Formats: sequence, structure tokens, C-alpha cells
Amino acid sequence: MHAYRSHTCADLTSANVGDTVRLSGWVHRVRDHGGLLFIDLRDHYGITQVIADPDSPVFSALEKVRSEWCIRIDGTVMARDASLVNKAIPTGEIEVFVRDLEVLGQSEELPLMVFGDQEYPEETRLKYRYLDLRREKLQKNMKLRSDVVASMRRRMWDGGFREFQTPIITASSPEGARDFLVPSRQHPGKFYALPQAPQQFKQLIMVSGFDKYFQIAPCFRDEDPRADRSPTDFYQLDLEMSFVSQQDVFDTIQPVLTGIFEEFGGDKKVDQTWEQISYRDAALWYGSDKPDLRNPIKMQVVSEHFRGSGFAIFAKMLETEGTEVRAIPAPKGGSRKFCDRMNSFAQAEGLPGMGYIFWRDQGEGLEAAGPLAKNIGPERTEAIRQQLGLGLGDAAFFLAGKPKAFEAVAGRARNVIGEELKLTDQNRFAFAWIVDFPIYEADEETGKIDFEHNPFSMPQGGMEALQGNPLDVLGFQYDLACNGYELVSGAIRNHRPEIMYKAFEIAGYGAEEVNKRFGGMVNAFKYGAPPHGGCAAGIDRIVMLLAEEANIREVIMFPMNQRAEDVMMSAPSEPMSEQLMELGLRVIPQD
Amino acid sequence: MHAYRSHTCADLTSANVGDTVRLSGWVHRVRDHGGLLFIDLRDHYGITQVIADPDSPVFSALEKVRSEWCIRIDGTVMARDASLVNKAIPTGEIEVFVRDLEVLGQSEELPLMVFGDQEYPEETRLKYRYLDLRREKLQKNMKLRSDVVASMRRRMWDGGFREFQTPIITASSPEGARDFLVPSRQHPGKFYALPQAPQQFKQLIMVSGFDKYFQIAPCFRDEDPRADRSPTDFYQLDLEMSFVSQQDVFDTIQPVLTGIFEEFGGDKKVDQTWEQISYRDAALWYGSDKPDLRNPIKMQVVSEHFRGSGFAIFAKMLETEGTEVRAIPAPKGGSRKFCDRMNSFAQAEGLPGMGYIFWRDQGEGLEAAGPLAKNIGPERTEAIRQQLGLGLGDAAFFLAGKPKAFEAVAGRARNVIGEELKLTDQNRFAFAWIVDFPIYEADEETGKIDFEHNPFSMPQGGMEALQGNPLDVLGFQYDLACNGYELVSGAIRNHRPEIMYKAFEIAGYGAEEVNKRFGGMVNAFKYGAPPHGGCAAGIDRIVMLLAEEANIREVIMFPMNQRAEDVMMSAPSEPMSEQLMELGLRVIPQD
Repeated sequence: MHAYRSHTCADLTSANVGDTVRLSGWVHRVRDHGGLLFIDLRDHYGITQVIADPDSPVFSALEKVRSEWCIRIDGTVMARDASLVNKAIPTGEIEVFVRDLEVLGQSEELPLMVFGDQEYPEETRLKYRYLDLRREKLQKNMKLRSDVVASMRRRMWDGGFREFQTPIITASSPEGARDFLVPSRQHPGKFYALPQAPQQFKQLIMVSGFDKYFQIAPCFRDEDPRADRSPTDFYQLDLEMSFVSQQDVFDTIQPVLTGIFEEFGGDKKVDQTWEQISYRDAALWYGSDKPDLRNPIKMQVVSEHFRGSGFAIFAKMLETEGTEVRAIPAPKGGSRKFCDRMNSFAQAEGLPGMGYIFWRDQGEGLEAAGPLAKNIGPERTEAIRQQLGLGLGDAAFFLAGKPKAFEAVAGRARNVIGEELKLTDQNRFAFAWIVDFPIYEADEETGKIDFEHNPFSMPQGGMEALQGNPLDVLGFQYDLACNGYELVSGAIRNHRPEIMYKAFEIAGYGAEEVNKRFGGMVNAFKYGAPPHGGCAAGIDRIVMLLAEEANIREVIMFPMNQRAEDVMMSAPSEPMSEQLMELGLRVIPQD
Repeated sequence: MHAYRSHTCADLTSANVGDTVRLSGWVHRVRDHGGLLFIDLRDHYGITQVIADPDSPVFSALEKVRSEWCIRIDGTVMARDASLVNKAIPTGEIEVFVRDLEVLGQSEELPLMVFGDQEYPEETRLKYRYLDLRREKLQKNMKLRSDVVASMRRRMWDGGFREFQTPIITASSPEGARDFLVPSRQHPGKFYALPQAPQQFKQLIMVSGFDKYFQIAPCFRDEDPRADRSPTDFYQLDLEMSFVSQQDVFDTIQPVLTGIFEEFGGDKKVDQTWEQISYRDAALWYGSDKPDLRNPIKMQVVSEHFRGSGFAIFAKMLETEGTEVRAIPAPKGGSRKFCDRMNSFAQAEGLPGMGYIFWRDQGEGLEAAGPLAKNIGPERTEAIRQQLGLGLGDAAFFLAGKPKAFEAVAGRARNVIGEELKLTDQNRFAFAWIVDFPIYEADEETGKIDFEHNPFSMPQGGMEALQGNPLDVLGFQYDLACNGYELVSGAIRNHRPEIMYKAFEIAGYGAEEVNKRFGGMVNAFKYGAPPHGGCAAGIDRIVMLLAEEANIREVIMFPMNQRAEDVMMSAPSEPMSEQLMELGLRVIPQD
């Protein structure tokens, strides 16, 4: 017989009754019914109930085992009494009478119970991660993560992509976040960097003629921590293709992601048609470039109804150029209580408040209520109601000013309204491409032009577009929004050196600066670069959505804590002085 | 029509004759036959011949394109004359008459030609890696690498393994090589390390109850470069299993590797039965713990034939304890010229020489020739011949002394003999497990006991074995040898804290030291650790064997040069002073 097991703890059924079996696993739970001992024996695959009474030659040894000891038992499979069958688990029809016992690994007193639902402080969970990982939730999340990544690979292979590994110890790639640096021993005083993304290398792979690349790629950014972001590294499904337009990239990644969400998303509906929304429309309609489209609310411009109206604040504001009034329709939000609550929300977010109208019937037919309605009068109010398609029991909120100043708050108000009024469909994965990002933005104060997004994207209209007003230039650049998160980001790349130098020049970077910062890639473009583009999908976030977790640490095997420390392995730590010597470095004493 | 292509450059056959098609790719070769232009257009998938004459509206534009320009053409598929059909390529039956042309990416003058077999200095190849990668050999090697890794994953999944990612920015793990360090910004003066291997984390995954883990894992070691080793990082197929014995690990990895070598090894034979050879036998028989078993030569101890013999040097040497005489049989090596050459080889390797006997027939039947035979006389010579199973036309070489002093040279002599005499089967992948490694070794001079190999392996016989002579303790530790390389290394781990402390104590490390260096893992073992073991297979080396490459840089997409520099991306480089400031570091000026 095998040294440790003839079966796993999920294998045995009534078909095995009478068999002599060997099982190994952890003591999940012990119940001592006075002379009759019940142990739930757990392994990665399941739980089997094993029992012993004083007839067992190892009864007294078995009485000594405690929770989370790792043991091996031999025994005989017995059918449970019909009344004791547990239909919730595959092994619920049987139990194993123990005849031999080997303790494989004892346990000291547990700082964290595996059995049960007790909550523990995060530091305890991270310090004893190996115990936390034995618990049902993390076992499930880690299996899910692994299965999601495996499925991504299968789907990419099926699409004709090959996975290639790009360097991890490499050059600094200034892409917005901070690099992690790695001092070189062979070149003291010089440093490598860990890649913030394989962006430049995947573009070089296209220049090298590989046509279709993907990678489940680790990315390294030295960032200040957030709940949905690791302070050190994260993984993305990174892909790049040659000889493609934007729509080709969409047509490639959409079936991969719908497939993943259908395979692992339980019963939730997965959008099959992904709308393409321009960056400007997304800002107007949803107040966000990663809108939650499970929420049906779409904002509208209603400036005309307020221009010259009796609501002086708005009317006056509209006299300034670049201002607008926008409405957030709130179907079924038609109560003063709700409207006041939303008004307070806006104030807490730093706005003066949100005007509102709601429609009720106090026995005299449809009536528009709220101070705003009074100020602008019934005709304008009715025109607004008709534009927004609202009716009895509904409400609308109004924000005015320069859109940039209130858009983000409007977006958050839309989220809250959707959730509070239960308009947001919790049972759906809602996707849309956000497209037509502007390449440049002007600094509000200085007017200086800089890149708004990724400087490597191809401007729509190419070189010609760069001759006009930079603020009008849109890029072949896109994000995928899903349930309020940015899940994917990508672009058709600027593969023409002359357009790239021009694009950088507009943002104030000379050719020398471009060569210095991106020389490896720009040089390559001078030797017959193909048009190419791609995208990267955030794996940690996809798994978070599928696992319904709000904290990234629930979907990573061994995460850092919020201070970027590994409290289990004690990292970071002080180096040995010989190590620093070899690297030619000295630590500056901190105050 | 698609913006760039209706077909790839490998798609078109005679079935497409008459079709209007669009192709994109690189100008592989241009031939101008005076008014008739032939261009081999190449993409990732293949090559298509496109032609134009002055009837083409883009003839004059096409005359201007040069090697490695990236172009898009539209044209009409035409059948080639029967006499011009090229059966070597799938598109050899057709050519495309060009009617439209778009230059997608021009090329400056090429520092490295893609077409043809010209050789270039390595620095040129690495600086213009994107051009080198377009060449046939590297395209093939990179595809091979990607396909090998994909096949490994499929095979591991089929075996019930899940892939889990372990941390890359983590704690120092002292495992013999130098760590790469990563300074922490949030904790100035402290450093993370890049993992030399996921060893501790995969063991923690077992303690966490996951049962079967694998990972295509990047490993980071700051090593001085060698042809078959990257100076920064390499990849391994890393696996670990719980509740297993050594044989279970063998039974798991063997079908994966035989499968890979059969799938990608061309016509070469792949051993189906993998012998298990003890570390001591491997040293005796092959003079190596990674023997090349394609070579049938097996060394033997022949001390008895020389004890008290007329060959005084050996006879005298054998009077010292611990000495031996070993023979390397050399079938078909029976010429004085060959024997003298091998004698010189041994001298070049630092030995006094190798005695030899060879058997010839100069008309008077079988005769043993060479000075050794004369000294020991015909009876002993004949006994040696019979023990070694040699005959007419064969030879044998002899080495004497303490085996440690000559074993390695004997092993290399065996390789040379096997190759020179064409005994080594070049058409085979020959595998054997090397097992029963000693856990400890004694320093030759001081006698101090230290670990000979991995300190985390379980000693055979457990705690009891550690009570006896440490030099007799063997570990459950194993390597896989293939064609003279170590392809896999692994062990059943020491999962019992008390045995681990004892094992370290024997090597002179107190409990405090163990806790300091391996605390994360040893602590985990105190909470019900399962017995577990695994191994890691070197992916770069496997691909090198399959691609028949001797240099690791031929199987890595973007390798470092021998000085651990990326000359294409300019790494390592000098950091900005703000970066050092943030990290709390100062560079010590070098002399």
C-alpha cells in the first residue's frame, strides 16, 4: 500500500464499504462522544469522517490528536446509518473505522483556527498565512485564480498566440509609476529596474516579427498601497499583435474575457455585445472613464432649460463659457428624503449641493416638487421631465459649472443612486469599450500641453492630425470598463519614428530626451516596424470580481501587507554589510 | 478588406489563383531582373513571392523598397510556370502580381542581414536583437521554447497540478548563490530579494494544504556568467507534492519529460526506462553525478589485479588506505596512437597520465600491448581483459589513487573516449536518476562536517540516522541526468522541525541561526506539516538540448550579454539622484 494514502479525503463512497483504506490529511474537527471519537479528516480535496472506539488498537493515541495535526490513518470503510448520511459532501455516506494511526506532523497551539468562521486581524492572517490558506475561502480563491489563469492560457493558445517571457531584470521604463531598482554587483553604482509592464519588450517582439504574443506577466510598481492594488507587483494578461487595427484587438480579447466570465462567473449574466463609448461621452453620461453599466442611469445635458430661467444660480453660471447643467435621472427616487440624502452626499463630496426635482401625486395628478421646480416654473420643469423620460415617483438631480469640476462627483452620485434605488443589476458583468481618448491635455493653469495618457499610442489621423490643435487629437487607445473597474487597457501603437518624435515634441520632449528614455524601442522602429497594437488585462482584478472580493490580498497566495512588508518571511530586511560592499552602496542613516 | 492582410504569407496556394489578395510583411529578398521585379515577402508564418513589371501601377514605387522594409501589397494570385514551382514552401505554386503598395515601415541601412547565413559578433546580435530575432534560427528556437513551455503546462494540468504564482519581491533565501537585492522605498535601508528559487514558498504551499503545485518559475541568481547559464535569471518547471515518497515524484515527472522530448526531440530515441543510480555508483562508473549515458562505457575497479604486481607505481599506491585503481574500457580504442592521445589528455587535465593496455594481433594471435601489460605480466593482463569483457582491437585506461582526486578527470576522459570512438549515440536522449546523495561531507583538511547538498532534504532513516556517523547519512535527494547535463533536481523535504534542527546542528548551525535564516518555513512546520517533496527542471537547458544549441542566449528572447548587460535597452544604468535619495542610498565611488 502507498506510504500515505490509498484514496484522497474526497474519494470514498458507499461503493467502498468493507474496503481497507489509508488516508492522510489534517484533523479538521474532533468530537469526543465519550468512548466514541469522531474526526473530520481534511485534505485538499475534501473531508472524510473517521471514527474510533476503544476496540480500535490506536484509540488512546487517536484521543491525543488535536486540530490541524497532520495524520495518516488506516481503517475500514463502513456505511453510515441512513439517518446519519450527510448529503452535503461526496463522502457523506460512509465513515472509516480507524485501525492504525501515524502522526505525520504535530501542531503547536493554533494562532488561527482553520475550522469555523472566526475573523482574525490581518496581521495575524498574513503572519500565519499557511494556516489562513487552509481555510475554505482562501482554498477556493486560490483554486479559482489558478483556474482562471489556466483558462486564459488555453484561450490564447486556441487563438494562435504564443507565450514569450520578457526580461524581469531589465532597464528602467519610465511609464508613470516608480520603478523598483536592482543594484548591479558586476557594475557597482549602476542599477537594473524591474519592469512596470512588458510594454517596450512586447513591442520589440512585434518588431522582431512574431505576429502574436501574449504573456501572463508580472508587473512591478513601487506604489503606495490601496485595497485593490498590491504595493509591489501584480499580474496582467498582456498581449500584442502585428498588422491589426483597433477592432481586431477588440475581436481578439472579447471572446477570451466573455469566456472567462461565463466559465467562472457563476450564474451572473455576461454581456455579449460590448458597446464602444467615446471618452467624452463616458464622462458626460457616466462621469467616469470606467463606468458601471449595470446601472442604467445615463446623465444628460439640460443647460437649455436653465438658461435665462428663474433659477438664478444656474442661469448666471451658464453665462460663463464652458459651463453646463447636467441632470442625473433617478427613476423611483421620487421622495424628499432620498433627494435630501443625495444632496448631502454631494456636499460631503465638496460640492455646494445638488439641486433636484421629484415627481409625486398628492391627489391632484403629477406634480413636480422641490425648490428648483418652483424657481424655473412648470413649463421648463415639464420639458426636463420629458427630455429625461421620467414620471411619477421619479427624481432628477442637477449639477452645474465646468464639467471637469463636477464630473467625478456626478459619477459617484450616479453609483450611489443606482445602488440605493436598486437600479444596479448585481447579477451581471457589464462591459463597454471606452475609446477615443485624447492624447494631450493642457495644464489648467499654465496651459502647457502634456500627454494625457500613454505616449506610445498612435494618434488618429497620424502625422496630419499632429499639425492641428493638439487638444483635438484623439488616440487609438482604449480601456475596457466592467462593473465600474478598468479591466483592460491598450492601444494601437505609434510605430513610426517620425510621428513619435513629433508627438513627443508637442509635449515638450526633444528628440534627445526621447532617445534617452525610450532609445531601445525607438531605434528598433527605424528598421521596418510593423503596425501593431494590443492590450493588457488585470488578472488580480478579474479574479477579485469573480471571487466577489474587495481586497486584493484575498486573491494572492502570499501578499504583502499595506506597508509592503512580508511579515511571514520578514521582508524587507537589513542586508549584510558584505552584500552592500559588493554592490558599492552605503545606506544613509535616517533621522 | 482588412487594413493589412487578407491572408498570411504562408496561406496562398494554387486554389487561390485569380483571387485579389492583400499581404503584409517584410521584404526578405529583392531580385530585379531588368523590368521584372521579384520580392520574397516574409511574415511570421511564411514567404510568398510577389512580382511586378512596368504594367503595375506601383512598379516604380516597388523598385525603391529595400530589405526589411515592412510593406503592405494588394495583388492578384497567379499560378507559376510548372518549371518555376518551388515545392520547398507551401506557397511555392503561386506568385502575386502587385497592383498596390503601402510602405508601413521603412528601414535604415541594416547592421545585420536577416536573409542569409552571415555570422555577426555577439554584441551586434544583442544590440539589434529585433533583427537577429527575425532570422530563421531564432524564430524557430523561440517558437520551440514557447511550445515546450505550453506543453509542460498542459501535461502538468493533466496530472492534476495547479499553477500558483509565488512572490518575486520577497525575502532573501540563502541557498548557495548570491541574491539580487531590491532596496525598499517605504523602509529605507532595508532590502527585498529576488528569489533564487521558489523553494520555501512551494514548501509553504504544501503546508497550506494545496497538495499539488507547479509553476513555470523565474529564478534569480547573481552569478558570474557561463555559456550555459544566464547571469541574472532562468526558468524552471518547479513542482511540489504532499504525501509522497521519492518514487511518486519520479512517476510524476518522468512521463512529463519523456512526453516533451518525444514531442519536440525530432527523430531521436527517448529512453523509456530510467535507471536509478546511486551517487556513489555514478562516481565510480561514470566519474560524474550527471553522466552521459548515451556513452556505454562503464568504469570498473580493478585494484586487485595491480596489488603486489610488477607495476610498482600502482602497487605502491595501493598500500595507502582509500586508494583504488579504476579502468576505463575503450572498445575499438586499440591503437597506440589513440592510447597516447588519451594519455596526453589526462596530462593536460593535470594528472601524471593514464596507463593503458590495448589488444592487437600482429599475426601471432591476441596480444596485449603497452608498457603496463609488460610490467604486470600476461596472467594479470588477461584477468583484466576478461573482467572488462574486452578483446581484439580494444583498449583500457587506468587511473590510480584516491578516487576523489581522479574521478572528475576519469569522467571527462570517458566522455572524450566515447565521442572519439563514436560509441556515444548522438541520436538518443538518455536519462537516469542519480539517487542516495550523501547529506554531509567532511572538509578535507579540517574534517569539519557541512552540508554536501540541499539542507532541506529528509535524511533516509530520519532522526535515527542522524544519531550515527554523519558521513553515512544519505538523503532522499535526487538529480536527473540527461546526456551529460543535470536536468532536474529535487528531494523529499525534511518537514519535521525536530529533525531539521538536528540536521543543522550536525553541520554546526544552532537553532537560533536556523530560525534567523529559515524562520518563515521552519515556523510553518510547527503547525501540522505534511510530508512533501518535489523537484525542479531547468527549462532553458531542456530547450537547449532540444534545439541542439550550446549557448543559452540562443533560446532566450532578450538575453543579457556575458557581462550581465542589456546593450539594446542600456541596462544597468545610473539611477537618478532622486531615486537614490528616496531609497536612502548612496553610491560609494569606485577606484
